[in-house]
Amino acid sequence: MSSIDHFWAVIPAGGAGTRLWPLSRSAAPKFLHDLSGSGRTLLQDTRDRLAPLVEDRVMVVTGEPHREAVLAQLPEVAPDAVVAEPAPRDSMAAIGLAAALLERRDPDAVMGSFAADHVVADPEAFHDAVRRAVAVAREDWLVTLGIEPTSPSSAFGYIHLGEALPGSSGAAAARKFVEKPSVATAEGYLATGAYRWNAGMFVVRPTVLLDLLGEWHPQFATDLRAIAAEPERLAELWPALPKIALDHAVAEPAADAGRVAVVPSSFPWEDVGDFDALAALLERGPEAAAPTVLGEAGIVLPVESTGLVVPASGRVVAVVGLDGVVVVDTPDALLVTTRARAQEVKQVVAALKESGRGDLT
Amino acid sequence: MSSIDHFWAVIPAGGAGTRLWPLSRSAAPKFLHDLSGSGRTLLQDTRDRLAPLVEDRVMVVTGEPHREAVLAQLPEVAPDAVVAEPAPRDSMAAIGLAAALLERRDPDAVMGSFAADHVVADPEAFHDAVRRAVAVAREDWLVTLGIEPTSPSSAFGYIHLGEALPGSSGAAAARKFVEKPSVATAEGYLATGAYRWNAGMFVVRPTVLLDLLGEWHPQFATDLRAIAAEPERLAELWPALPKIALDHAVAEPAADAGRVAVVPSSFPWEDVGDFDALAALLERGPEAAAPTVLGEAGIVLPVESTGLVVPASGRVVAVVGLDGVVVVDTPDALLVTTRARAQEVKQVVAALKESGRGDLT
Repeated sequence: MSSIDHFWAVIPAGGAGTRLWPLSRSAAPKFLHDLSGSGRTLLQDTRDRLAPLVEDRVMVVTGEPHREAVLAQLPEVAPDAVVAEPAPRDSMAAIGLAAALLERRDPDAVMGSFAADHVVADPEAFHDAVRRAVAVAREDWLVTLGIEPTSPSSAFGYIHLGEALPGSSGAAAARKFVEKPSVATAEGYLATGAYRWNAGMFVVRPTVLLDLLGEWHPQFATDLRAIAAEPERLAELWPALPKIALDHAVAEPAADAGRVAVVPSSFPWEDVGDFDALAALLERGPEAAAPTVLGEAGIVLPVESTGLVVPASGRVVAVVGLDGVVVVDTPDALLVTTRARAQEVKQVVAALKESGRGDLT
Repeated sequence: MSSIDHFWAVIPAGGAGTRLWPLSRSAAPKFLHDLSGSGRTLLQDTRDRLAPLVEDRVMVVTGEPHREAVLAQLPEVAPDAVVAEPAPRDSMAAIGLAAALLERRDPDAVMGSFAADHVVADPEAFHDAVRRAVAVAREDWLVTLGIEPTSPSSAFGYIHLGEALPGSSGAAAARKFVEKPSVATAEGYLATGAYRWNAGMFVVRPTVLLDLLGEWHPQFATDLRAIAAEPERLAELWPALPKIALDHAVAEPAADAGRVAVVPSSFPWEDVGDFDALAALLERGPEAAAPTVLGEAGIVLPVESTGLVVPASGRVVAVVGLDGVVVVDTPDALLVTTRARAQEVKQVVAALKESGRGDLT
């Protein structure tokens, strides 16, 4: 398998992963952690997965506070390929800046944007989907990978497929992006077979992306291109950029305008949004008799319990008589919850900030 | 209120408190801990409760490894009043040794034995019961305090009351000691009104106790008296003493022989055997909306949870969406369980010993 000529991987490495507290912190967010137990962090896994397709054509966009950690974790990536945002301005600014830089660097570039904190199994199926997406993107579509849903999840947005595109890519026009639905609505989506999960994986020519942005947010596109032309203007222009997700700024209006294509994809994908998702990801076998352990299993003593234990402080953790429990033990903070209530962990983070213990978040 | 002439308090300070792990350890057992949040340990509380009755007539019997800690916690007690057992030999040996020492020291002594790790509320009711018991003990009965049951508990032994004794003490002859019953059997006991909890609180003249022991275990009584006469023989004689509880060695056969009296008592009493009992003891109000905290409440962040949290490591503890949960956070070990499963904590201690981590128990 050879790499794809002029194909660039853009890895936005942002997001706090609040629902994975106390493992994920603002000082060490989710993407810097090994959540698969593989010995590689999510960021490293993301880069490893893309490397066969891009060789060294990788660009990481991250927050200024994380630049050093990103460089340390990715020794294969050149320092000037790790772009630091002066402040978080959501995904449109981050990915748009990468697009503006690549537009100047390689007029034939196609870029693919893949979040640093997602988990993808079956890399061959992933590579195949990306190759098909790149081919479609060369025809000036904004292409998104549409993941085949495995459950009527209410945690993800969906893409409604329209008519098939001509050619052998298997791609279809995107009829519409829809926000996270209720489970009942999602069940209806799955029954039609015409909906895919929106994993936020976009493949597009940089110029196409910026021109689409320019249709709805002309100043935004102009400012991004100005920064790329004169990088010393970053500090001046960045703070005024709109704080908006790429989905809202470009993908949704572009779909309505018939400019988005979907490449249906069947690789297993997980955004590991909370400890319930993490437990599902790590679980071996259909019915576990003991908690899954992320870390040193030898220091966890379960008695008639199931769930997830993260013994990250080195202390012995004993769990007695609890099903679906989540215990995350770190040197300065401990979380005890259940898989069913894992979404509410963000309330703890909010409470810590309110009570002046933001240092722990 | 004056103290009771010639009345001596004997405080056996033993027992590992295994079901209170990881708070209670073999190196720092239950009685050395403040489990009431009062700032005083159970041992100190026990001594404080008895002081008005005995002034400085206190004798503590404890294991050799705990002698220094006991002396440090009880600066009011003279060093020679803290007797160290060379090895644990159960309650008959511990209390019997105190009896043999007191028999030589004060021929008019009446001793009362009160475990170092129980909790008693309403000290005035306690003092009143002890005064009545001492009066009965002077008539050569082996007297036990019979606690009025507040529930059909299967965690305690019971005493079946017989005929009332003459006089105004309210005491009755003990018909029989019965082992921990089923809850159904205990309900039957409570319905009769003729049963009391056996809290292991005995009041007796030392000579009476040793003579009763001598009826069923003559060598045991002889050896205890020999140690009291020649303390240097402790190391020689102690290891051969039978490992038996006072209840089995003396109280049960003596009750059958019509030699035991019961002073019915109504003070609230709790042996704090596990975290469920501890939670019940500490709970404020009938229905708690948040977990009870033993320790620094400010570092516990509960979200829709109830139960008991012991934040003993100084780390922040967040609990989300768990009812009746028990979280005990210490610097080297963490326990997560529920009030309903609190009895099974001893399985963790057993597993730690088996796996070579006895240092944590």
